[in-house]
Amino acid sequence: MPSTSLCQDEACPPYSLMDDYSEGAHPQILEALLRTNSTQQVTYGNDEYSICARQLIRNKIGCDEDEADIFFVPSGTSANLISIASCLRPYEAVITLDSGHIACKEAGAIEATGHKLILVPAVDGKMTPTNLQKALQQNQFFPHMAKPRLLYISNASETGTVYTKRELTSLSAICKQSNLLLFMDGARIGTAICSRKNDLTLREIFDMTDIFWIGGTKAGALMGEAIVVKKELANGFVFHLKQHGALLAKGRILGVQFMELFRSDLFFALATHANEMAQKISTSFEKLGYKLAAETETNQVFVVLPQELLRRLQDRFRFYVWEQLDDGNSVIRLVTSWATDELEIDKFNAWVEQWTVATNILSD
Amino acid sequence: MPSTSLCQDEACPPYSLMDDYSEGAHPQILEALLRTNSTQQVTYGNDEYSICARQLIRNKIGCDEDEADIFFVPSGTSANLISIASCLRPYEAVITLDSGHIACKEAGAIEATGHKLILVPAVDGKMTPTNLQKALQQNQFFPHMAKPRLLYISNASETGTVYTKRELTSLSAICKQSNLLLFMDGARIGTAICSRKNDLTLREIFDMTDIFWIGGTKAGALMGEAIVVKKELANGFVFHLKQHGALLAKGRILGVQFMELFRSDLFFALATHANEMAQKISTSFEKLGYKLAAETETNQVFVVLPQELLRRLQDRFRFYVWEQLDDGNSVIRLVTSWATDELEIDKFNAWVEQWTVATNILSD
Amino acid sequence: MPSTSLCQDEACPPYSLMDDYSEGAHPQILEALLRTNSTQQVTYGNDEYSICARQLIRNKIGCDEDEADIFFVPSGTSANLISIASCLRPYEAVITLDSGHIACKEAGAIEATGHKLILVPAVDGKMTPTNLQKALQQNQFFPHMAKPRLLYISNASETGTVYTKRELTSLSAICKQSNLLLFMDGARIGTAICSRKNDLTLREIFDMTDIFWIGGTKAGALMGEAIVVKKELANGFVFHLKQHGALLAKGRILGVQFMELFRSDLFFALATHANEMAQKISTSFEKLGYKLAAETETNQVFVVLPQELLRRLQDRFRFYVWEQLDDGNSVIRLVTSWATDELEIDKFNAWVEQWTVATNILSD
Amino acid sequence: MPSTSLCQDEACPPYSLMDDYSEGAHPQILEALLRTNSTQQVTYGNDEYSICARQLIRNKIGCDEDEADIFFVPSGTSANLISIASCLRPYEAVITLDSGHIACKEAGAIEATGHKLILVPAVDGKMTPTNLQKALQQNQFFPHMAKPRLLYISNASETGTVYTKRELTSLSAICKQSNLLLFMDGARIGTAICSRKNDLTLREIFDMTDIFWIGGTKAGALMGEAIVVKKELANGFVFHLKQHGALLAKGRILGVQFMELFRSDLFFALATHANEMAQKISTSFEKLGYKLAAETETNQVFVVLPQELLRRLQDRFRFYVWEQLDDGNSVIRLVTSWATDELEIDKFNAWVEQWTVATNILSD
Repeated sequence: MPSTSLCQDEACPPYSLMDDYSEGAHPQILEALLRTNSTQQVTYGNDEYSICARQLIRNKIGCDEDEADIFFVPSGTSANLISIASCLRPYEAVITLDSGHIACKEAGAIEATGHKLILVPAVDGKMTPTNLQKALQQNQFFPHMAKPRLLYISNASETGTVYTKRELTSLSAICKQSNLLLFMDGARIGTAICSRKNDLTLREIFDMTDIFWIGGTKAGALMGEAIVVKKELANGFVFHLKQHGALLAKGRILGVQFMELFRSDLFFALATHANEMAQKISTSFEKLGYKLAAETETNQVFVVLPQELLRRLQDRFRFYVWEQLDDGNSVIRLVTSWATDELEIDKFNAWVEQWTVATNILSD
Repeated sequence: MPSTSLCQDEACPPYSLMDDYSEGAHPQILEALLRTNSTQQVTYGNDEYSICARQLIRNKIGCDEDEADIFFVPSGTSANLISIASCLRPYEAVITLDSGHIACKEAGAIEATGHKLILVPAVDGKMTPTNLQKALQQNQFFPHMAKPRLLYISNASETGTVYTKRELTSLSAICKQSNLLLFMDGARIGTAICSRKNDLTLREIFDMTDIFWIGGTKAGALMGEAIVVKKELANGFVFHLKQHGALLAKGRILGVQFMELFRSDLFFALATHANEMAQKISTSFEKLGYKLAAETETNQVFVVLPQELLRRLQDRFRFYVWEQLDDGNSVIRLVTSWATDELEIDKFNAWVEQWTVATNILSD
Repeated sequence: MPSTSLCQDEACPPYSLMDDYSEGAHPQILEALLRTNSTQQVTYGNDEYSICARQLIRNKIGCDEDEADIFFVPSGTSANLISIASCLRPYEAVITLDSGHIACKEAGAIEATGHKLILVPAVDGKMTPTNLQKALQQNQFFPHMAKPRLLYISNASETGTVYTKRELTSLSAICKQSNLLLFMDGARIGTAICSRKNDLTLREIFDMTDIFWIGGTKAGALMGEAIVVKKELANGFVFHLKQHGALLAKGRILGVQFMELFRSDLFFALATHANEMAQKISTSFEKLGYKLAAETETNQVFVVLPQELLRRLQDRFRFYVWEQLDDGNSVIRLVTSWATDELEIDKFNAWVEQWTVATNILSD
Repeated sequence: MPSTSLCQDEACPPYSLMDDYSEGAHPQILEALLRTNSTQQVTYGNDEYSICARQLIRNKIGCDEDEADIFFVPSGTSANLISIASCLRPYEAVITLDSGHIACKEAGAIEATGHKLILVPAVDGKMTPTNLQKALQQNQFFPHMAKPRLLYISNASETGTVYTKRELTSLSAICKQSNLLLFMDGARIGTAICSRKNDLTLREIFDMTDIFWIGGTKAGALMGEAIVVKKELANGFVFHLKQHGALLAKGRILGVQFMELFRSDLFFALATHANEMAQKISTSFEKLGYKLAAETETNQVFVVLPQELLRRLQDRFRFYVWEQLDDGNSVIRLVTSWATDELEIDKFNAWVEQWTVATNILSD
């Protein structure tokens, strides 16, 4: 049996800033599971907690039952593959960034449902109207080319940037003109909505997209994502869940978690904490003269560090080395979350400052 | 917000005997989730709890790491579709009972991965050597027919019966002769192993099958199944998990649950309870002169009841009416579980006895 | 190099009555290919011959361009899998006879496109309203069961029987009530239309189905089938052809063949010949006192023969032994076609008669 | 009925140089179909012509039955999708040029079989070792990324260039080191082999690849491609043909055509003619001072023309405008074939010369 406490005495392992899903769930969520545990419930998502969670989410969006159906699934890959497969005909293709999660981190899950991905280069981690239009123009030689039918974007993006209202409005307009569905991967939609750069409401996102999902896994839940589907696309959706193994017998455990996240503003509070921790890191780096590789808009920090600092940091903290630059420096990625301990961030910043000051003195 | 306690005063709803997943998780499992919640863990199933759970399960089977890989997935349908898709080439088919879960309760999940199902009639809910041989003989007109390559069976079966050592040995021998893989759906393998009819060990099941899985969802976990894969079939398996959305970022939550179920004999104790509750019901029915539609070998009771009794029972308990018989009677199905309250079973039996006695007196 | 003439002197092999595609194409079809060979044509089915062939087929049906689109594909399995995949959503299932070609002779081609088959027992090789209704009733436990959405039938059926107007009207009505599409496999639709039992026009078949196809391969073409698709289902159909490798670069070769088959009544004349040859065989058998295992409605004869006759016949003719009966007799299948040589049929009948008379004398 | 002769008097339409499949078949092929038409043959590819054609192709390669199986399919897309689907597990991906036929001209056929394409930029229409290595390095984050397992290349490439022995040797070596299968699309392999730039034998191609195919459609056949499969990958291949609708009942028609193409050197003679016609065009253009956009290595000419010439040429000949350049000029593509009439090429060259001379005089 492993010890349930990993950090003891000298053997304390490096604190992880690798991702936003290294811990379990927010304590309130576990408490909600405990509190509701013994009731008997209808199965497969028709339990009272799931029904309640759906209504709470609709309330936050500001839409009613006639406008949106909501489905809970256990993982982000499930959310993406089911949403996409549910609304495409076999010859229809998805337009995505080449850095899109479905394009490079889901083991070909979309293609496994039979659909082609059309890859578009990212600008600041995002789809631009220009690049989207270009992709549409280059994919019109029918029927030899698959037919573009859905635009996939992530908000926050895979590199932590967010779509502004102006950007989303523009993409949405092109989609409508071009008969494209607009689908938003919301694995980190909480941090997007809570970003200081954000000017979009959930209602606006709902209006401008056809399907989007609200990530729970990276937002404090044990697991689970809530897919918000425009009513006209929801017919038959539950069959897709079942067919892909995503319709849990005890749907209640997803319902309870989202009920807890959305009955108050817990969901947003946790995302805000994650963003603030990232901001604290990037502010400290900038103050010390380090260059950010990307603006810190949500809970991911990309910063350029010299090898020596990187190496020394790795003894104390865990994180991804994102890219080796030609000048010998490297970009590292630091991810904060609802669970990030502010004391650890303070230690991180203090240590970097201390090292930097000492190094500067030595090199003077 | 729904009340978290459903049963209050007069408004107490009927007690459910509909299935074995109407409640949450066994309290020990929730406690284990709480206890391990705050540690930082490696993600996607490489956490220490999952590693530990795998070893505990191997210990119960009596096999070592060189013989078996174990993968955790969130649902039974995931377990079935991933296991089957992982080891078949596109033109290979699955032989299954027409009552098999994959044949009639998974929304075409196996076919959605591209594979044909060859249906065989059940005898007492089970595959027989004779029917298997017949199916093989009838599916040899190649390449016009898909090639049978895997036999799917469930233990306990969909109607609660169990395979004996003799039966499984015989099926396994045919599979080996015929170049068929043998795959066992173990959604209710706990109740099978703990059945008084059972004479199979987990090691024997492991030896006679190529892949089998151990159900957690119906055995007291929040959700989750453990797929046990013979080493020679395990190569690449984790890609299948990822591709089908079944590789949870927080794999720990599956690891923790199976660690708790298998670190002691909790898994078997819970299955035994479920079986005993079912036995108690069927013994009572038989004593009162009612006919069982199938022998009660695990946690499902199938009993023939007159309409009047059925109707009155439905006011007090929830269960499935399984079949309407020609003589006006009906078969009902009653399912017990790890969570079944013995007091409710006592009430159930007492009420049936009371009604029966009263009815007998009146009709005398 | 093989000799191009197989039958020389004593070495003449047995004449084949195994199927209706053992020869090449009707000479007129080859002549048409020769005649049109050197023109330059637009590719991928937009050549003038394909356009003309479509109009000729529409004329025979009595429908116009606004009602039906027509697509040519190289094989029957292509026609089935493309037609079915084009109009189903991923969770939708096909209802078919267990003897349906897609169910047992296409290597799982439909399942390979992701769709479940729901099997129904045949009566005289055909779907009955009663069996269809029963299948619909047994497949309503949604979303655990795949949703029945399309009925597949073959006319002529796999055992050579034909659907009457009354039968098809009845099936079509159930389909409309139950939101099922009706799809007819017309691999042998020519022999069905030309059967003395037939009372359906092509227009009626068009009206009562949603998609049906007209088989060329078994009707004198080198290869090729014409899929007739109701206009409302035709949108995007050509993409399916391309995606499945069925959109030939030189679509002209399919167009030319169907142009030739339908510019006069060649298609029907050839089917009538096939039917007459089969009738001649079955009449002879009946006159001699042999029992037919099925009525001879088109170009397939199923007759019960004693072992001795079967054995002796096999030296002279090639055919399938369809079934071994318990009484020692066997059912054989004899298939005639547009290419069947009447002299060979006369020889066949004469030989059977001679053997039968001699045997009767001996046994007196 | 359309006229079978398109070119009459003044109404003669522009001669097409759009592609290499605008005509029917080479006359010898049609004669072979006529000559073999009336024999009765075993069906589904086991006829004596197919058997003979397989042996003839093996002879040209210089391999025997123990080394290679050969399968005939009706189209290039069939050949690609069946070959690829036959040897990949569901999570395995294909590396291809972004200009690869499977990537941009097959309507997502490969993805429809479930497999991801990893796109790599082309250099002179070809895969380079550097770009291949880079793609392999960027696709190693398993199991989040699909696993690269097969390299797809076309020879001749989509832009008419050919792989040299040195280039193919290098790619083949990387494939072997990296556990990649090497698959060559040979839609235009005839013109590649007959290119003056070619130094590869069919045996070398066979040795360096795992599967390759020999295109008939663009080489004078009515339709059909011959897939050459290394023996160790051939097991079960015929099921894939059947499942995808590519196993023709009258397999003989493919066998006869390839028998005719390979019993003498017809296949190579026709490819040589196509190449010579292209060379004649590009030599003329170069002599007149026009710039080729790519070297003319096989039967495709890419040349940069001023708008005025392009416009005037379009009245007389049909071809694709490939790209609009920024300087107002355009790249056009001219494709020649086995059927290209040398008189038309002479007319083409003469007309271009005449226009150029006249224009030069005027502009002096």
